[in-house]
This record gives sequence, C-alpha cells and structure tokens, in this order.
Amino acid sequence: MSNVIALLHGPNLNLLGQREVDIYGTTTEADLLALVEKGAAGHGMTVEFFQSNHEGELVDQVHVVRHTCAAIVINGGALSHYGWSLHDALATFEGPVIEVHLSNTSKREPWRHTSVLTPVASGTIMGLGPHGYELAVDAIARLLNK
Amino acid sequence: MSNVIALLHGPNLNLLGQREVDIYGTTTEADLLALVEKGAAGHGMTVEFFQSNHEGELVDQVHVVRHTCAAIVINGGALSHYGWSLHDALATFEGPVIEVHLSNTSKREPWRHTSVLTPVASGTIMGLGPHGYELAVDAIARLLNK
Amino acid sequence: MSNVIALLHGPNLNLLGQREVDIYGTTTEADLLALVEKGAAGHGMTVEFFQSNHEGELVDQVHVVRHTCAAIVINGGALSHYGWSLHDALATFEGPVIEVHLSNTSKREPWRHTSVLTPVASGTIMGLGPHGYELAVDAIARLLNK
Amino acid sequence: MSNVIALLHGPNLNLLGQREVDIYGTTTEADLLALVEKGAAGHGMTVEFFQSNHEGELVDQVHVVRHTCAAIVINGGALSHYGWSLHDALATFEGPVIEVHLSNTSKREPWRHTSVLTPVASGTIMGLGPHGYELAVDAIARLLNK
Amino acid sequence: MSNVIALLHGPNLNLLGQREVDIYGTTTEADLLALVEKGAAGHGMTVEFFQSNHEGELVDQVHVVRHTCAAIVINGGALSHYGWSLHDALATFEGPVIEVHLSNTSKREPWRHTSVLTPVASGTIMGLGPHGYELAVDAIARLLNK
Amino acid sequence: MSNVIALLHGPNLNLLGQREVDIYGTTTEADLLALVEKGAAGHGMTVEFFQSNHEGELVDQVHVVRHTCAAIVINGGALSHYGWSLHDALATFEGPVIEVHLSNTSKREPWRHTSVLTPVASGTIMGLGPHGYELAVDAIARLLNK
Amino acid sequence: MSNVIALLHGPNLNLLGQREVDIYGTTTEADLLALVEKGAAGHGMTVEFFQSNHEGELVDQVHVVRHTCAAIVINGGALSHYGWSLHDALATFEGPVIEVHLSNTSKREPWRHTSVLTPVASGTIMGLGPHGYELAVDAIARLLNK
Amino acid sequence: MSNVIALLHGPNLNLLGQREVDIYGTTTEADLLALVEKGAAGHGMTVEFFQSNHEGELVDQVHVVRHTCAAIVINGGALSHYGWSLHDALATFEGPVIEVHLSNTSKREPWRHTSVLTPVASGTIMGLGPHGYELAVDAIARLLNK
Amino acid sequence: MSNVIALLHGPNLNLLGQREVDIYGTTTEADLLALVEKGAAGHGMTVEFFQSNHEGELVDQVHVVRHTCAAIVINGGALSHYGWSLHDALATFEGPVIEVHLSNTSKREPWRHTSVLTPVASGTIMGLGPHGYELAVDAIARLLNK
Amino acid sequence: MSNVIALLHGPNLNLLGQREVDIYGTTTEADLLALVEKGAAGHGMTVEFFQSNHEGELVDQVHVVRHTCAAIVINGGALSHYGWSLHDALATFEGPVIEVHLSNTSKREPWRHTSVLTPVASGTIMGLGPHGYELAVDAIARLLNK
Amino acid sequence: MSNVIALLHGPNLNLLGQREVDIYGTTTEADLLALVEKGAAGHGMTVEFFQSNHEGELVDQVHVVRHTCAAIVINGGALSHYGWSLHDALATFEGPVIEVHLSNTSKREPWRHTSVLTPVASGTIMGLGPHGYELAVDAIARLLNK
Amino acid sequence: MSNVIALLHGPNLNLLGQREVDIYGTTTEADLLALVEKGAAGHGMTVEFFQSNHEGELVDQVHVVRHTCAAIVINGGALSHYGWSLHDALATFEGPVIEVHLSNTSKREPWRHTSVLTPVASGTIMGLGPHGYELAVDAIARLLNK
Repeated sequence: MSNVIALLHGPNLNLLGQREVDIYGTTTEADLLALVEKGAAGHGMTVEFFQSNHEGELVDQVHVVRHTCAAIVINGGALSHYGWSLHDALATFEGPVIEVHLSNTSKREPWRHTSVLTPVASGTIMGLGPHGYELAVDAIARLLNK
Repeated sequence: MSNVIALLHGPNLNLLGQREVDIYGTTTEADLLALVEKGAAGHGMTVEFFQSNHEGELVDQVHVVRHTCAAIVINGGALSHYGWSLHDALATFEGPVIEVHLSNTSKREPWRHTSVLTPVASGTIMGLGPHGYELAVDAIARLLNK
Repeated sequence: MSNVIALLHGPNLNLLGQREVDIYGTTTEADLLALVEKGAAGHGMTVEFFQSNHEGELVDQVHVVRHTCAAIVINGGALSHYGWSLHDALATFEGPVIEVHLSNTSKREPWRHTSVLTPVASGTIMGLGPHGYELAVDAIARLLNK
Repeated sequence: MSNVIALLHGPNLNLLGQREVDIYGTTTEADLLALVEKGAAGHGMTVEFFQSNHEGELVDQVHVVRHTCAAIVINGGALSHYGWSLHDALATFEGPVIEVHLSNTSKREPWRHTSVLTPVASGTIMGLGPHGYELAVDAIARLLNK
Repeated sequence: MSNVIALLHGPNLNLLGQREVDIYGTTTEADLLALVEKGAAGHGMTVEFFQSNHEGELVDQVHVVRHTCAAIVINGGALSHYGWSLHDALATFEGPVIEVHLSNTSKREPWRHTSVLTPVASGTIMGLGPHGYELAVDAIARLLNK
Repeated sequence: MSNVIALLHGPNLNLLGQREVDIYGTTTEADLLALVEKGAAGHGMTVEFFQSNHEGELVDQVHVVRHTCAAIVINGGALSHYGWSLHDALATFEGPVIEVHLSNTSKREPWRHTSVLTPVASGTIMGLGPHGYELAVDAIARLLNK
Repeated sequence: MSNVIALLHGPNLNLLGQREVDIYGTTTEADLLALVEKGAAGHGMTVEFFQSNHEGELVDQVHVVRHTCAAIVINGGALSHYGWSLHDALATFEGPVIEVHLSNTSKREPWRHTSVLTPVASGTIMGLGPHGYELAVDAIARLLNK
Repeated sequence: MSNVIALLHGPNLNLLGQREVDIYGTTTEADLLALVEKGAAGHGMTVEFFQSNHEGELVDQVHVVRHTCAAIVINGGALSHYGWSLHDALATFEGPVIEVHLSNTSKREPWRHTSVLTPVASGTIMGLGPHGYELAVDAIARLLNK
Repeated sequence: MSNVIALLHGPNLNLLGQREVDIYGTTTEADLLALVEKGAAGHGMTVEFFQSNHEGELVDQVHVVRHTCAAIVINGGALSHYGWSLHDALATFEGPVIEVHLSNTSKREPWRHTSVLTPVASGTIMGLGPHGYELAVDAIARLLNK
Repeated sequence: MSNVIALLHGPNLNLLGQREVDIYGTTTEADLLALVEKGAAGHGMTVEFFQSNHEGELVDQVHVVRHTCAAIVINGGALSHYGWSLHDALATFEGPVIEVHLSNTSKREPWRHTSVLTPVASGTIMGLGPHGYELAVDAIARLLNK
Repeated sequence: MSNVIALLHGPNLNLLGQREVDIYGTTTEADLLALVEKGAAGHGMTVEFFQSNHEGELVDQVHVVRHTCAAIVINGGALSHYGWSLHDALATFEGPVIEVHLSNTSKREPWRHTSVLTPVASGTIMGLGPHGYELAVDAIARLLNK
Repeated sequence: MSNVIALLHGPNLNLLGQREVDIYGTTTEADLLALVEKGAAGHGMTVEFFQSNHEGELVDQVHVVRHTCAAIVINGGALSHYGWSLHDALATFEGPVIEVHLSNTSKREPWRHTSVLTPVASGTIMGLGPHGYELAVDAIARLLNK
C-alpha cells in the first residue's frame, strides 16, 4: 500500500501569506507543505503536493492519486462551496479524505458556511490554522494505522 | 451539412465502469463511444468524442463543434447542475442538443434533481443507462432527417 | 411474459393537434398511437392505449396493466406535476416505466419544471416531440431484450 | 495558567458504545476519556470531564471552567444543533474551544448539518471517530504552546 | 420481559386541567394517569409515571426506562417541537414508543405542526383528548401481544 | 342517531398486501375491513366501506355518508397530501373524523410528512399498522359514547 | 356564434347553503343558477350548468363546451388551488373565461390565497357573494358585445 | 346615507391611455370616470373622483370619504402591492370597498401577483378592462341595495 | 392581590458585567436587581428574583409565581429565541408579563431578531439597557394601577 | 442642547380612538400627546408633535428635528414595516430614537411582526398601550440624563 | 429633441455630505449637481434637478420630464428597494434612464442588494461615488449621440 | 505605478457579435478591445487583454496582473453568477476593479440577477452595451487620478 499523502490545494491558496493575512495568517503555502511533510515523515509517509486554480486540474489530480496515494488532505478554497465535480471525483477515492480549512468558515460570509466536499470526506478539520494540516496528517496516520 | 455528432462528456465520466458501479453500471466510456459510433454509422454519421474534467475545455469544445458538427449529445456529469458557462456555450449551438444522463437523477441527492443544461437542450433522456446514448443518436437522426 | 406496452395519456392530451400547436405541434393522439404501434410491431409487441382526464381512471388502469402489460409509456400531462396518487400507482408496477413529454418542460412555467412521476419512472424522455414516443418504445424493447 | 482541559459531553453521549454502534462505534465514554487523558498527559495537562443531558448543567459547567480550565473540548450531542444558551456560554470562555463530532454529520439528517456551536468555537473536528478527540487535545496543546 | 409502561410528560403538562381548558380540557394529570393505569391493568401491565419541565430530566428518565420498561407513552409538550436531545434519547429505546397529543396540533400555531419526536416514535395518536392515552395503552398491548 | 361507521380508503389502498409489503405489511384491505367490522360490532356498530382511486368519488361518498353515518375513519392514501377537495368535503361532516395511516409517514419522503386532511380531522392515528384501524373504531366509540 | 354560457362548479359547491353558511351564505346552487339564468336571459343568452366533484369530469366538460358555448363562468372550489389539469383545459377555450369566488379567499387559509386558474382566466371576480355571478354574466355580455 | 361612490386611483393611472397600451388599452382616466359616473347615475348615485401618485394623499382621501361616501372603488396601481398604509386606511372604512385591476395581474411580473389591499376589500374584480369599473359600480349598488 | 413582581433571568445573565461588556455594559445582575427593587418600592411592591441557566427551572419558577406574584419581568437570554416550553409556561400566567432585552437584538445575529416569548408577553421593552428594567417596573405599576 | 422631544406619528394614527378600538383602545391622538407632554414636563422638556400619512413628510420632519430636537419618539404605523426611507432618515439622527407600538404586533398579521425601523432605533417599547408613550419619555429622560 | 437631462434624487439625498460620510463621502448634493451640469455642458446639454423625500413627488416629476427632458439620471435612495410606483413611472419614459448609486450596495444590508428600479433602467452605475454621476452623463451623451 | 489596465473576459465572450445579437449586439470582442485601448490611450494608459472560458485561467491571470496592472475591468460572463474562486482572486487585487455587463441582467433569467463578483468590485456598470467599457476606463482614470 502506498505511503504517500496527496495534499491538494484549491484556488488562490498559492497566495497564502500574501493576502488577507487577517483571515489566513502569514504562513505561506510552502510553510504549510513543510509542516505536512514533517508530520508525514514522523509516520513514515511522504507527501505529493498539488495546487491549482482550475477545478478541472484538481479533478484530474484526484484521478491520478487514486492510483498513487493512500490518503488525501484537501483544502478546496472557494471550490469547497460549489465544486460538485470535485465532490464527485473525491467520492471515487477509496482511502481517507480529510478536508481542512484554515479559518472557521462559519464566522464568514454565508456562502462559505456549507462545504459541498464535506459529504464525501472522511472528516473535516476547520478553524485551527496551520495546526489543522498537522492534525490532518495525524488523523490519516491513525486511520491507516501508520 | 456536417454528418458528425459531437459526443461530449463532463467531469469524472472517464472513470465510468471503474467507480460506483451500483449507480453507473460497468459499461466504460469506450463502450459507450462504440455504441454511439455504431448507432451513428447506421444513419451514415460519424462521432467526434471529447471528454474533459474542465468546464472551460468543454466550453472551448462547444465553440469548435459549432463549425464542425451537426448535433451534440452531452452528458455534463456534475457540471449539469452548476455549469452556467457550459449552458451559455450550448445556447450558441444551432443544431440539436440532446442531454443524456445514465442514472435517474431524481432518485439521487437533491442537488442532482435540476440540470442547468436542460433549458438549452432540445431534449433530455435520463435514467436509461447506455440505452440512453443509443436513443440520443436515434433522436438526432430523426431531428436531422438522416 | 406479456408482449404488450401500455400507452397511458393524462388530461387534455386527447386535444393534441387541436390546441396550442405552437407548443405541442400538429400531431394528433391518433398519430402518436400509430407511431407507437408501428414501433412496437418492429419489436414484436402490441400496444394497449388509454387516455383519461381523470387521475382516478389512470390509477385504475395502472392497476389493470399490472396484470396485462410488460411495460408502460406514460405522458401524464398536467398530472405529472401533482398526481401523487398516480405516482403511487406506478410505483407498484414491476416492469419498465418510461415517462415522455412532448415539449421541453424546463422552458415553460415553473410548475412544469418538476415531475412527481420521474422518481418512479425507469427513465424520462423529454422535449423531442413525437420522436420521444418512438424512442420510448425502443427503450422498452432494449430493457426487455425484445 | 491552568493546565486543565475541560471535556464536555452533551445529551446521550453517556450511552456511547451501547447504542447505534453503526453510527458511533463501540468506544465508550470511559474509553474516550482515557484517550483524552492520555493525550493530555503527553502535554503535561490533565482533564476535567463533565457529561450532562441538561443544557442548563452544561451552561453552569462552562461558567465553572471559565475559572478552572485553560481550554474546552466539547461534543454537544443534539444540543449542537439548537443549544443557543450553550452557544452564549461558550462565547464567554476566553481560551480555545474545540468542537468535536464523532460522525460526519453532513451525511446524516438535515437538522444535524449545521452546528450552532461552531461560530463560537476556535475550530471544529468532525467525522474522525475517537481520533477526533485525540486531535482536539493536540490542537489545544499547539494553540496553548504546551 | 418487563410489564411496565413508562408514561412520560413534558413541560407544563403538570398544569393540565388548570390552564387553557378550552384547548386541553378539564382532565388533570392525575386523571390521565388513572386512566392509563386502568387501561394497563386490563392488559396485566403497570405504569411508571414521570413528568418534568426539564428536557434533561426527560432524557435521563428515558435512559432509566430503557432498563425497566417495555414501552413508552410520551406527550412531550412544547419539547415535541424542538427537543432534539429527547429525540436522540427515544431513538435508543428498543420497545414501542407511542407519541400522544391531547389536541390536534395542526389546528394551532405553525410551530406546533411538526413534532421532532414523530420520526423516532412507533406511532402517533393526536387530537383525541384523554381517549388518546387509553388508545396508546391498547396500542402497546397489541404491539407487545399482551 | 346512526350506528354506522364509514370506512373510506383512498387511491391504491385496494392493492394492500400485494405491493410494497415492507412498508405496508401483508394485511389486505379485506383483512382490515374485517378488523374494523369486528371492532365496530363490539360497540354495536356496523361499517360502510368505500374505496376509490378517484378523489371525486371520495368527495361524493363523504356527501352520502353525511346523511347515513355517525363517524368516518379515513385513510386518504396519497390524497392525504394534496386532496384539498376531500379536505373541504370532510369539513362539512358533523360527526367524528379519524384519520389513519398504516405507516409512520414522517419516516418517508418529505411530501408525505404533512397531511392536508389533518386540520379537518378530529384526530389522527399514524404508524401503528392495522392496529391503528382498531384504535380508530375504539376512539369513535368513546367519542360517541357507544 | 353560440348564445350559451357554461356555468361550471367544482367540488362541494353542490352543498352550498347547507354547509359553512358563515362563509358561503344560505344561497343554494339552484338559487345561483336561477340568478345566472335570469342575468343571461337579459342578454339573450342561456346557461348550461355543470357541477362535479371530479376534476376529470370538469376537464371533460370544458372539452365539450369548447364546441357548444360562447363563454365560461367557473367557480373551481378547492380545485382552484391545485387543479392544474383544469388549468390546462381552460387554456384551450377560446372565448371569455370568468373565474368567480363567493368569498374573499385572501381572508382565509393561506392555501386558498392563490388560484391556479387565474392565469388562464380572462378575469376574476371575488368576494362579492352571489352578486359575483351576476356580474360575471354582465362581464361576458360586455366582452361578447351582447 | 350618502349616495356617493369614491373612485380612487393610485400612482400612474393618470397616464392611462397614453402609456403601455398593450397592457392597459387606450381608454383614458376621463373615459373611465365617465363610465363610472354613467353607471352610478343608473343607480341614483354620484361619483367623487380622486387620483394621486402619493400614497399619503390616498390615505388622506380615504379618511375624508369615510365621512362623505357610501362606498369605495379603488385601483391602487403599484401601491396595491406594497401600500400597507393604504391597507390600514381602507380597513377603517365601513362601507363596501371594491378593488379593481384593469389587467389580469397574475399574468404579469411576480410582484404584481399579490395585492395587499385585497384582505381589506369586500371584493376584487380583475382582468376585465374598463368593464371591471362598470361591474364594480353594479356590485356596490347591489351591496347597498340601490 | 400580591404585591410582588417576579424578576426572571435566563441563561448566562448571571455573568452580566463580566462578559461582552461592549454589548451588555458593566452593570451586574445585582445592580439590576437593586434598580428593580428600588423601582418596585416606589410603587409599594417587592421583587422575587430568580436566575437559572436551565429552561426547566425557569418553567418551574413560572409555575411557582403563578401563585405568589402579580406580574413577571423576564429577560430570557438566549432562550428567548427557542424556549417554547418557557413560552407555554408564561402563557398560563394571568398577570402582566413584560419582556426585557438589554441590547437592541435587531442589530445582532439573525437568530436573535425574533423572540418566541413576545407573543405571550403583554409587552416588550428592548435596547434601553438597565433603564429597560426600570421602565418595566413602571409599566407593571401602571398596568396594575399601583 | 435642545429640551424638545419630537413625537412623530405615521399613517392612520390620526384616527386613533375612532377605529379598531379592540386593537388600539379608545385613547385619541390628542390624549396621547397630552400624556407625552405631561411626562416631558416632569423632566423639564417640551414636545413637538407631527403626524402625517405621507412617508415623505415624515422624512422631511426628521430632517427638521435633527436641528431642533434632542430625541425622537416614533410610532411609524404601517410604515414601520416597509418605510425604508424613514429608516434612512432616522439613521441620520444623533440623539435617542424610541420606537413605540401600542399593540403587541407579534400577535397580529405576519407582515407586522418585523419593524424596519427597529435597527435604527435606540430601543423599542411595544404592546403597552398609551403607557408605552409615557415610558418612552422616561427612557429619553434617562438616556439624556434629564 | 430636448437637450435637457433630468437628475432625480430620492429620499435623504439632500443630506449628502452631512451624514454617514464613511459610506457616502463628503460631496454634497450641490457638488454633485455642479459635476453633472459641467458634464452635460460638455455635450451641449443642460440639467433639470429635482430632489424629494416623497415617492409621489418623484412620480409626479417623472410625468413632467416625460415632456421636457431627453434622459433621466436617477438615484432613488431607499426607494430603489421598494418604490414600485416609481418603477412604473420610469417605465413610461421613452428616453434613456440611468440608475446611479454612490456606494456599492452589494456590500451593505441585504435589503439594499436588489433595486426594483433596475429592470426599467437602461443601465446602472454603482459604487463609483460622484464619478458615477459623471459617467452617467457621458453614457447619456453616447446613447443620444450628443 | 503601472499604467496598464487589465481587461478580463469570461466564458463565451469570444463569440461576441456572432451569437445572440439581439441581446449582446454586433460588436465583436476585437471592437471592444479597440474601444478600451482608445479610451485608455486618452488617459496615457495601455490595456492587457485576456479572455478565457476557464475559470482557473482567469484566476491565474488575476494573480499575474496583481503585479503588472493598476486596475481591472472585468466582464465575467456566466461566471459572474457562480465563480466564487474568481471572487476570491479579485478580492486580493489592490487597485480598482470595475465590473461590466453589456446587457441589463436584471431583465433576463433570474440566475443572472445577482453577481457574486459585485461584492469585491469597486463598482459595477451594467446595461449600457459597449459604452459601458468606455465608461469603465473613464472610471479607472478618475479613480487613479490619471
């Protein structure tokens, strides 16, 4: 079985740390990846990272990681709230899928209160900033008995 | 006038036969294409197939087939339910547009009950599995008097 | 097993060809029946036709054809949108049920956008005019392996 | 500063492991507490546990732990979905509040899809079973720099 | 198997016969209990009565009677319309649960038209005044073959 | 005063015992009538039974029994959810009207959760299978002091 | 051109004067017919009256009067609020259609506030009791220049 | 008792015959007044006419005619759909109030489908063009026994 | 007749002055009670104070003060927005019930915009801070002619 | 600083005491003004009264009193429920604004349940009849430390 | 053809620059008029300005400028969101109608998100402050080929 | 500071002038670009044009122009109504963002009535055809003091 965690990032997350720091903080995407890689290494796992502003590319990538990864950690960005194609792609993945949000979306605009990805995720971790990514890796390790 | 039918497939349909076989059956996308090609041949027509997980590519392709095809058969996958750009693209196509769904979407999640593509389709065929594709070709042949 | 298709028509369809020809065209109910019978004959099947403006009579007839017919083709007319008793009757039929609409109801008044019969139909064919009836017969033949 | 985590359990969670094991699993409340205590110990923290089927007692207890605990982990049970008094109580707590749900509530009845506690939580962890409690403790340790 | 029926009364039912007699009549809670006990005795059963204005105490009591009673008759009072914790408690009870309302709540304020307890009840008897309690006992006797 | 109970059955109830036995059980309509007659006889009453799949016939029959019967027991089938004409007819009946449903409709499709007949019924008994009919007869006997 | 006005009455109107006299008054259906006939005579017209509790029969009758009458006066009773088949039938009638309600339905239950027949009527007269029928005849005379 | 009918016209009705003649026809406000006066004279009554584009002036005028007129005929124009102050004013008038609309508002924009004046009118006459005004006068004569 | 005013406080009001002072100010519950007692004394009345975080205890207390107090001043806290049991309890109280809110709840979260207690209160005073309590006492004195 | 309270009355309040006395009582507008003036005098203040049935005049008057008055007491009548222009005018007033309603509007028609003026008022006093006006003056005196 | 642009201002705009300067800025109405006049002069046009807090006066003025002006620039203030009478008046104007809002109303309260004037405007310019007025004049010049 | 305006076009705008000319006119995308370039040149600015049918590419391009352009003019096509990722991208742009629509979308299908881009735009110009683009450039020049 694969020892790889797919870390998928949706639209605009490549700007993390450069925009709206009052909401998202100053951690960059590279910082997050380093955190996740470090966490994964602690469980003997590696990370395959993919960011895209295109829903289609994220769907394509989910199709790829169906064959290469044991689990998915996904922060869909705005697509979390209308990306039904991504929802359908994730539904075909057999391993654990952990949805992460840096901010507590229930405190923001109403359209961010519901995620269409949640019903196809194993679980969701929200509002805990970068810690949420570390916890997601731990969750996967536990679910996979790593 | 063109003798070509454009067969367009939306997100995740490339996985047909590999996922959720209880809903979609075991027929693969290649099987469907063969069915459609066979049906088209019976009416002296050929098929131009295009699948994409990207709404933008499907819009691009509709723009292409406006010049090369006489009719469209489309299964938009999840985009059927929120792909307004695809809706607008199809609205510019002058020949028949037949929307097909393998499953009876009214028996599934509420967000699948309404298709935003239906108002710009000539007609819709739903719930009849691969037969729906064969019927769509027959419908086109009748509408084009082939 | 029966070789008979029940063709059921709901309220006002007896006026086909005589009213609102911009929506429904000039084909009469007799024309449609002839089309269906011709299609059925091609598959070695016959047709039992029944039209009523009474929901109760349509329910009665569904009860009858449970014992005499192998499949149902139904255009419920306005009852498609509120005929829950007809919905319950069709739910008791064991063979294929194909719902047909001549027009693309999603282009008309909002109350016609949802059919309460769809959830108990095997499939739906909509917007293709009289061709929809021919396709419905073909669908049945395919589903019954005729 | 206090080294104590308040673990609060809402209505019916005292029956964990005895009811609806298909949804909640066989882990008992005592098992969960042991997990949380073990996790807390790893960070030099202890746990103050409180379960009640009374919203009023949970509100009272939040008032108590405002003075005695550094953080709250709360699974509100059904109160998560209508317990506005508990919402108001949690809003007065100054340390981190982590909301935990064993199951992925977005897959269950619609009334469980929204939690009224989320807007006053620091973050939410959902769908990960008992692991969610372990992660909640880790989250608190990170947020408190323990 | 237990021969005891738990009769549970929600908020304000202790005032029966003293308030709003145009809606609830002049029968007191003691009168109702006597009726239920008499009915139960006719089937060789006894009654364990419990009234509370606290949702938490009703949940606690449902937990108790899971071990001591064969069936529940419950009139949740206003909690019928928002008491999701009580809903969850009743869902853990394995014997018959009969929901009773003295008045026909569909004739009163809109918020009384839906009971959140109904989906976890075996059945509901509404609008028949004190007779509803007698019928509930008879229903239980029939369901338990007493 | 009349000693007759009108038992009215709406659409598709004539198929009881032959369809969807997982929902409605194997009891036939004849069995139900026998139960009701037996129950009525115990109170010195007789039963006038009427089933129809036509809302109009049920309205006609309510008009008839206004002159011949002392009470009505009605299971409106699907008409319970949209039969406003039947609602208006029942509103003209002066004796007790008991609405019965075999299944607990709150556990089924949303459109079955509300009955338009309830506001004109004396009371409703739901979810108790054939026992519900026996209880309805007892309710009538009590209400009429038989 | 025909000199006949079709007067159509929906469900329960045959009970006029016998029920709910606080809402509908003591005028009977025969009284109303006499009024309408007298009014029509004043314009050299006659009246063809038809009452039914069956939506199907009303649809059938609309089909008949398409060939025999110059105008329709209709009080659909409860069908005014859900009788889409009757709506479709009236839409096929080429002469004036006047919808009449005895009571001001906007003062009654919410489901009576909207009539599905209004969009296919030439006009509506509501709340004026029997006078509304007299006015409807006058309206027709004016519209037909009688 | 007064022999005067107040004819009240809301905003933009002073432009009748000059604008949107496809909807409102070519009859001018003066023509309508002449019709109403002629009709009133036939019953020995006179007319007091008032048009305003100001809701406040219409309210003022209703207060005036409470003392001078026996009945009101009102076409509120757009105020019919949001003029709650006018609604409250009309509620204080003790004689008959007849609401008139030239067009069938149910065939126009959704915000015109409901009139807030209807619940305080004796009756409504809609869709019959200028004839509606004549009928309103006749209705008043009948209601006042003129 | 009693000279006592019951002052009832719902959940979290015991923290007044200690939390969210930007919304509720720095006045404590004791300060409020002193204000109310002073005001009451001016009218020859005394105050019976009761605060609870338990809806059940507030219901119990309403039952008590039905026998001991002449009027109720109530600030239900969050229960104002979902405490239907408290609503039912207050409905049984025969004297004046004045609902008070310190803040103007219409400026806060949507769920605080509607109070379920208002329909059973004599009147409501909102947004005036501690002054609202003084006014409530004055209102009671006026209503009781003290 | 000004010692003047502006008392503003919206549409139809000039009829107080003359209409719907079951709802509004027999107190006239002059009586109310006398009460308010007496109350104001007790705090060394005077009253500037203005009633209009025109929203525009009320807006104009708010603009005037911005320069002449220290506070506003307003009963907007029906405009309370749709007068957004009045809302915007009041938002520009810098002193206290007290909204008063004689009746408890939550017990009346649904459109009266929400006031669009409340979000720009300092506070609201509702349901206490003429006493509400006296309390409003007292509130202003307290808020202005008079 | 007229060379005059009607500039219409709705309620409270006369206070521009004096109130809520964080939303509307410090530009006064006179400043705006000067800007518009300067812009109009550049296209050989003049401006007829009218402000009112009365919807009726704005309707009256639209009727006037139908005869005197070639185009309308309108900022309806709060009436933009409920002024259906103004909507109907503008619908009768034959030249261009440009709707202007100083602020981006989609960032403010929900009731300001939709303008009832937009469907009868040629176009809308929103959120650009005083520049929006200048652009509106330019737009008119372009549309009129000035 | 950059002198470049980014002109961004969403899906299907590349077909301008070739499709639905009744709605969008005969101006092509090249014509529009020429207009915008000419307008920009008048203010000493240049234009960077980008059209895509892919939301992802538009998001990518917004990220690019954050570093290269001083302002954005965007017509999002159908993405205006569901493109939340594009919304989030635009929110990160620091200069002016002007949203343009050729047609008045409030006159078209309901789903086009709300733009999800508006809340992150500086302003919106709608319904003025190609002129809207010219005005957008002028707006930018004004906002940037060019």
